[in-house]
Amino acid sequence: MLATSYTLSTTTDLGFTETADRVREELKTEGFGVLCEIDVQATLHEKLGVLGEPYVILGACNPPLAHQALAAEPELGTLLPCNVVVYRCDGTTHIAAIDAERMLSIVGNNDLAPVAAQVRDKLARVVERAAAG
Amino acid sequence: MLATSYTLSTTTDLGFTETADRVREELKTEGFGVLCEIDVQATLHEKLGVLGEPYVILGACNPPLAHQALAAEPELGTLLPCNVVVYRCDGTTHIAAIDAERMLSIVGNNDLAPVAAQVRDKLARVVERAAAG
Repeated sequence: MLATSYTLSTTTDLGFTETADRVREELKTEGFGVLCEIDVQATLHEKLGVLGEPYVILGACNPPLAHQALAAEPELGTLLPCNVVVYRCDGTTHIAAIDAERMLSIVGNNDLAPVAAQVRDKLARVVERAAAG
Repeated sequence: MLATSYTLSTTTDLGFTETADRVREELKTEGFGVLCEIDVQATLHEKLGVLGEPYVILGACNPPLAHQALAAEPELGTLLPCNVVVYRCDGTTHIAAIDAERMLSIVGNNDLAPVAAQVRDKLARVVERAAAG
């Protein structure tokens, strides 16, 4: 798995739809509900007529951790839920999760550190297991 | 309007529901569709039995700007859409938009700078106008 400046990501030989299904399953295993799904390909096609590759944003929320984080930082909803994306590019299926520690670093609230670390670890496991065919 | 480390926020004397409606309208005026709405109060009540105050996350997307940003940075979906939240706290209605420039600073891709500045300006106008009774 590759850690970029803001994501935890990998590629997989699996197809797009199967990968997205596996990510949904692994999110559930780690205690995340998917609160919203955005079909980026369909949205950009509908709004702009653009013909892009498959791309879905899964907005994931672990309720106990979200509750804890919002209690410490009321405006944190501007950065929730935590997203995992699945997309096709260059003939490969990509999975990327937001790096919660990096994302929450902009808030500057040390009370969020334990939650951010837990979310990062959980999403890293989601990416890794979803990609393992 | 107050700029925190990661949001553009204000308070208003208007009620919660009217404020959320006004934010939706102003987002439309600035070219944003609301791609997802998360009722935080209802979600935390359903999942945890917590009785919190009204809190909604509006996930806003300006399609031309999102398309431009994703072309420059394929994994940017992990940080989209841009959220505006409306919530009640201490007897007051609060509005907060993510500061897109601050959020996108973690990506470290200079090609995103013009888009981030445009989104920041647009969301600042949304917050300001929605709060003006």
